[in-house]
Amino acid sequence: MADDANTRTTRGTLTKARMEAFSDGVLAIAITLLVLDLAARPPGSPLEQFLRDWTAYLAYLVAFLTIGAAWIAHNSLSDDLEHVDRIFLRLNLLFLLSVSFLPFPTRLIGDALDKSASSQRVAVTVFGVTVLATRLLLAAMTAYAERERLRRAGAPDLDLQDAQDKMRVAVAVYLGAIALGLLLPFVAIVLYFAVAIFLVVPFRAVGQAIVRKPAASGSER
Amino acid sequence: MADDANTRTTRGTLTKARMEAFSDGVLAIAITLLVLDLAARPPGSPLEQFLRDWTAYLAYLVAFLTIGAAWIAHNSLSDDLEHVDRIFLRLNLLFLLSVSFLPFPTRLIGDALDKSASSQRVAVTVFGVTVLATRLLLAAMTAYAERERLRRAGAPDLDLQDAQDKMRVAVAVYLGAIALGLLLPFVAIVLYFAVAIFLVVPFRAVGQAIVRKPAASGSER
Amino acid sequence: MADDANTRTTRGTLTKARMEAFSDGVLAIAITLLVLDLAARPPGSPLEQFLRDWTAYLAYLVAFLTIGAAWIAHNSLSDDLEHVDRIFLRLNLLFLLSVSFLPFPTRLIGDALDKSASSQRVAVTVFGVTVLATRLLLAAMTAYAERERLRRAGAPDLDLQDAQDKMRVAVAVYLGAIALGLLLPFVAIVLYFAVAIFLVVPFRAVGQAIVRKPAASGSER
Amino acid sequence: MADDANTRTTRGTLTKARMEAFSDGVLAIAITLLVLDLAARPPGSPLEQFLRDWTAYLAYLVAFLTIGAAWIAHNSLSDDLEHVDRIFLRLNLLFLLSVSFLPFPTRLIGDALDKSASSQRVAVTVFGVTVLATRLLLAAMTAYAERERLRRAGAPDLDLQDAQDKMRVAVAVYLGAIALGLLLPFVAIVLYFAVAIFLVVPFRAVGQAIVRKPAASGSER
Repeated sequence: MADDANTRTTRGTLTKARMEAFSDGVLAIAITLLVLDLAARPPGSPLEQFLRDWTAYLAYLVAFLTIGAAWIAHNSLSDDLEHVDRIFLRLNLLFLLSVSFLPFPTRLIGDALDKSASSQRVAVTVFGVTVLATRLLLAAMTAYAERERLRRAGAPDLDLQDAQDKMRVAVAVYLGAIALGLLLPFVAIVLYFAVAIFLVVPFRAVGQAIVRKPAASGSER
Repeated sequence: MADDANTRTTRGTLTKARMEAFSDGVLAIAITLLVLDLAARPPGSPLEQFLRDWTAYLAYLVAFLTIGAAWIAHNSLSDDLEHVDRIFLRLNLLFLLSVSFLPFPTRLIGDALDKSASSQRVAVTVFGVTVLATRLLLAAMTAYAERERLRRAGAPDLDLQDAQDKMRVAVAVYLGAIALGLLLPFVAIVLYFAVAIFLVVPFRAVGQAIVRKPAASGSER
Repeated sequence: MADDANTRTTRGTLTKARMEAFSDGVLAIAITLLVLDLAARPPGSPLEQFLRDWTAYLAYLVAFLTIGAAWIAHNSLSDDLEHVDRIFLRLNLLFLLSVSFLPFPTRLIGDALDKSASSQRVAVTVFGVTVLATRLLLAAMTAYAERERLRRAGAPDLDLQDAQDKMRVAVAVYLGAIALGLLLPFVAIVLYFAVAIFLVVPFRAVGQAIVRKPAASGSER
Repeated sequence: MADDANTRTTRGTLTKARMEAFSDGVLAIAITLLVLDLAARPPGSPLEQFLRDWTAYLAYLVAFLTIGAAWIAHNSLSDDLEHVDRIFLRLNLLFLLSVSFLPFPTRLIGDALDKSASSQRVAVTVFGVTVLATRLLLAAMTAYAERERLRRAGAPDLDLQDAQDKMRVAVAVYLGAIALGLLLPFVAIVLYFAVAIFLVVPFRAVGQAIVRKPAASGSER
């Protein structure tokens, strides 16, 4: 190979910075585009229209929190990397594909509101498969970084460890919810909401922040 | 804990940089998406259509300035932080949720233009609750940063101090406008406009810039 | 003032970096959102529909190049700044308002294609006033930076000097085109196109690049 | 010239950083906006509607991968640059124009699904010309950087070399597909998909990653 290890590392680091910038962009856009599909849908009085749309708001919230959790995990994984390589960049692209696809099933759920149960089933299933793919691609990126020793020495970032600890539960519930959604679409949405909350909230850190006196701060990030 | 304080700070700083990048992305997108909901609405001559839409333009302007003020306050708060922690990241996510939701009530106001008073009431109330939530989440982030000593030593950034000084007035007017909007929706929009101007304009700095001779520049940022 | 000059400069520099990030975001989104309003409009064969839409493509191209020119001028102005102050941040916000509003008149022009001459007049006039406002706000930011000595010592960036040199001509043609557009909307669009090309193309640098032998490169940026 | 070589380089480097930020923004937005044009289109049962839309999904995937490949090549070219000059900035703007235009033909393909063959021909041809333009502008930027010696000393980045190696094949297939698309639009879409895969996948690196034992990692980025 023509370029030596030193140049390689510099370049890998530069590329990592741009991969983060591009990923932050895609994640920020996907999370913000979700709002475009909220709408007051006739019939009914304005207040009824607004309130009757609660599944659309719930789907919006679930998608927002799911992308937010993906951003936190991505940020935390990337923080831990020394550099990235060419294959990691492509895995990242697939991860971004799954995230930026999510507004589509979210919109389908909103549209399926007053349609047939079969519309709801299709919408909820596509939603479930998409969030499952997002989580699996994060796991694949983490595993690849481990295998190729892209990570820095030292203990993993707490959010990364959290994401890894919660992975099995999240995937199991996702699989269950996808199956359940074929019968009871609304129950599946509630389960996706529960997983999003489970992924976003750092339970131990919140517990410590509540118990601890303000003066003792700084002992946990 | 496995990682020492030094690594922790480095990571917290890295994370802060990406939190800023992600937040800048979401705020920039939310503020720019607002334009998608402007439209010339029949009936009437083209000029009449364009001019008759003034509440939609006003709502656009209010939303633009409100997000702009939120960006300035966020930027100024974040400038003052040494690092961020895991809970701060989640508070930031909730703040971004409230900001990126704002285009929806803004669109509702534009759509309610030639509809019933009840449409306008719903639209204006949702708008008011959203801008109130944005402001309260900024206050929560500031208070949390204070409590957990995430801030740098030294006096706060002037824009941050300004935001804190103006907070009580803004929240009070927001609460009043939400109540008033149930009776007089257009008056509420005008009040939201007034608060946005109040939050964006740094009165003292403007006053000094006008009074001061150009040569004396540099004494106030 | 509580914070000394040193802290102030550090903060002004940090804020400048985030102002650039936020502005890049808004400009990038505004320039990319333009594509959402392109559409094949019946009636006619598919090819006829595609080709008949040429004013919409022209408006798209003019808006794209106008925002591109604004980005180049903004980048070049910001490069030359030592730091930014609070009032500059607000001027920048107004500049972003004018840029992010531009997709609306661009859409109006596309929609006015097969409508009355009066629709076209309204659309073209709003477009002209918006691009004029963008240019004037850039001039205001440059003048304010000069007055408050925010600029670095040394000669201005070549693109900034170029933008200043071309300002009078651009504003004069904009004013003429706004007046002319009330009679001949299509002529006005062509003039806006000419100004966009005039602003984007660095004639001297292009001339030198063509004349110069490749080996002599590096003498002009 | 008033400013010396040193200032020039610093400015060229600053400008390069903002060119990357702006380009990342446009590319991230273009790749994420694609999702807005996915839709379930009547008639048929919900599942039929969802599945029947496969050409729209394929076009989405092709456009996503094509923009992803363009981002990887752009990132890799930019990594290799010492600084950028004024003409390079404008070439970059044209490149961004071609990328941000791509969502329009992608939407045309989705819309042409159940329309006449002639709609499909127009949509596929515009798509092909756009992706060809993107690739040619990347080649022009690479050639210009070479001619003006904007590149760093040393061997090119592997992804850049890859992009250059694959350029001729990609352009040849694009030209063939544009011609073929006039007769067989669906075959052309499949060819664009094949080129996107060909451009995105780093075959040698993947081969080495598969063959190599995990422990031997680090010998190839």
